[in-house]
Amino acid sequence: ASNKTLLMLPGDGIGPEVCDEVRKVVDWMDKRRAVTFDIKEDKVGGAAYDAYGTPLTDDAMDKAQNADAVLFGAVGGPQYDNLGWDARPEAGLLRLRKEMDLFANLRPAVTFDALLEASTLKPEVVQGLDIMIVRELTAGVYFGEPRGMQMWEGKERCIDTQSYTRDEIVRVAEVAFDLARKRNKRVASAEKANVMKTGVFWRQTVAEVHKDGGYDDIELSNVLADNCAMQLVRNPKQFDVIVTDNLFGDLLSDVAAMLTGSLGMLPSASLGAVDEFGRRKALYEPVHGSAPDIAGQGKANPMAMLLSFAMALRYSFDLGDDADLVEQAAQAVLSTGKRTLDIMSAGCEAISTSQMGDAVIAEL
Amino acid sequence: ASNKTLLMLPGDGIGPEVCDEVRKVVDWMDKRRAVTFDIKEDKVGGAAYDAYGTPLTDDAMDKAQNADAVLFGAVGGPQYDNLGWDARPEAGLLRLRKEMDLFANLRPAVTFDALLEASTLKPEVVQGLDIMIVRELTAGVYFGEPRGMQMWEGKERCIDTQSYTRDEIVRVAEVAFDLARKRNKRVASAEKANVMKTGVFWRQTVAEVHKDGGYDDIELSNVLADNCAMQLVRNPKQFDVIVTDNLFGDLLSDVAAMLTGSLGMLPSASLGAVDEFGRRKALYEPVHGSAPDIAGQGKANPMAMLLSFAMALRYSFDLGDDADLVEQAAQAVLSTGKRTLDIMSAGCEAISTSQMGDAVIAEL
Ligand SMILES: CC(C)[C@H](C(=O)O)[C@@H](O)C(=O)O
Ligand SMILES: CC(C)[C@H](C(=O)O)[C@@H](O)C(=O)O
Repeated sequence: ASNKTLLMLPGDGIGPEVCDEVRKVVDWMDKRRAVTFDIKEDKVGGAAYDAYGTPLTDDAMDKAQNADAVLFGAVGGPQYDNLGWDARPEAGLLRLRKEMDLFANLRPAVTFDALLEASTLKPEVVQGLDIMIVRELTAGVYFGEPRGMQMWEGKERCIDTQSYTRDEIVRVAEVAFDLARKRNKRVASAEKANVMKTGVFWRQTVAEVHKDGGYDDIELSNVLADNCAMQLVRNPKQFDVIVTDNLFGDLLSDVAAMLTGSLGMLPSASLGAVDEFGRRKALYEPVHGSAPDIAGQGKANPMAMLLSFAMALRYSFDLGDDADLVEQAAQAVLSTGKRTLDIMSAGCEAISTSQMGDAVIAEL
Repeated sequence: ASNKTLLMLPGDGIGPEVCDEVRKVVDWMDKRRAVTFDIKEDKVGGAAYDAYGTPLTDDAMDKAQNADAVLFGAVGGPQYDNLGWDARPEAGLLRLRKEMDLFANLRPAVTFDALLEASTLKPEVVQGLDIMIVRELTAGVYFGEPRGMQMWEGKERCIDTQSYTRDEIVRVAEVAFDLARKRNKRVASAEKANVMKTGVFWRQTVAEVHKDGGYDDIELSNVLADNCAMQLVRNPKQFDVIVTDNLFGDLLSDVAAMLTGSLGMLPSASLGAVDEFGRRKALYEPVHGSAPDIAGQGKANPMAMLLSFAMALRYSFDLGDDADLVEQAAQAVLSTGKRTLDIMSAGCEAISTSQMGDAVIAEL
């Protein structure tokens, strides 16, 4: 049994309670499977600010750099809304992404047959939906300098800089093409090449990677980001893999997530480059946020966090079979009619966060 | 009868054929109502490029500056996809917006009861939907300088600049609050204040306008742009007026438009400031694009263009009653079951672009 380090950063709101459920799966794996995990824990976001006056300490950052995988809950809450720029909870998450160089954010948007009616879209539009959004996560307008107030041609203005180097586009495009190869072999690249210079550059660079990277088995199409948003609502099943920049990825992945109607079920992975030892830094987090209104009441759905752990098994630990087991257990629990409140519907059985975790273990 | 100048810029694809239908309404108004229009016409987009080598001539620009209102069809087509930056069809539209200083883009997203089933969303989610998106249209990342390739800290990178001055935010916020006052008195302001400095500045400035501008009868809320995109899919009827920047407005208004399921029905208005004579520059255009695949076949739906003309009557000519007449005529035609192909459904009568125009005139 190999010993892997998992860093848990539960964060704020429902973060801690959904992270707790992962511990049950880790325990189960320790006993039943060929791998054990050494779990470390630290604070992030508002919780870190309350304890240490910063949304992420250097010590926690170190732990993250040295972990085999980071499990991240959620950050934010109304009590932190008026903190300064550097103290805001999101700054902790953005520092992790940037310093760990987690440039590829994988956001699957998948519908579960048992939860189809939770979608606001007609069932035939979203049944069987399986999109993978690959969002660039460490560049673009999220990190570009300069930013802030400045004088420009005699006027005071506020700016952000949308910035991409060639390398920053190449590496995330490669991730998208590689993923598409294991799926339906289609990549749609979304930008605003009709308006933005970085959009033109993005489109050109992705086309070069496609051509020179030996990806001619993959079908590449370009779609304007506004049209992509429309098409996600009109006919989402036309997409396989979507690759896009940090900001468009933020919006498009949220639209795609909401199509499924079950935000509480959606995981994500943020991956770094593979190093010379075949390892990559990685952070896994549910797509849902900290939901402060229901925190601490046992109402949160732990599935997105559990499925994020399944992504960790697949992408960080090469334990695809175990990932499959966890995903199948989640499906099985749904088909028994057990539901947390967010996905509750008539005729189903309402259970708590921890009962949901137990139910997954029972299926395993 | 006053004499007003209308400049028609039909552009590419289905632009010309939908503009032709507006002429019928103008003729009707000339005969039956207290106003006559002097129609001028010029080229824009690919059509202008083909004729003059530029997507908008200075002469056409002059005509637009001097018209009482501009009616814009659509631009773009596959044959123009590989033109250079300055020659691309969109450059004509962007020049019109910038030089006419059309800073407030009004994009209503309204569902028509007769077309409810065209939406991919469940009828109960979108029935009665009536959102007004107010998009800033002359600043932000669409026009910010510097842009393009540059060296930065020893690396070559491509940038765009997201830029806002205080005034640019103030004036569009005022438009949003003023519109909300005539509607349901709620404004949601969308940005990424958790990530972007311009987002923080936007949020602060909108709050100042709300407080100092005497708008305490209007309820203001802030929503992160990604969450706004989600909420549009989850529960769009929670919104009344949404005010947002140029780029977020581009995506969010397209999501909102697609919720209605009938893009061929949606108009938009782009307005400048009111000058000392009480006049404002204005351009009206349908939300749908040039649809080159169906151009010239009589399949296009002229309703969005006709309803854009209705917006012109309301916002440029203070002819709210006549605008109402056109809008009611459009509704009436729908309830007789007449449909162009884009909104066709079982049991309805399929008619052509020009038959649809005639049907509206018949109702008038
Ligand atoms: C919390 C926030 C900084 C973050 C983002 O904007 O990237 C979130 O919306 C996400 O999508 O992970
Ligand atoms: C044609 C294009 C330049 C334009 C934009 O991006 O603003 C269009 O998408 C729109 O929304 O009017």
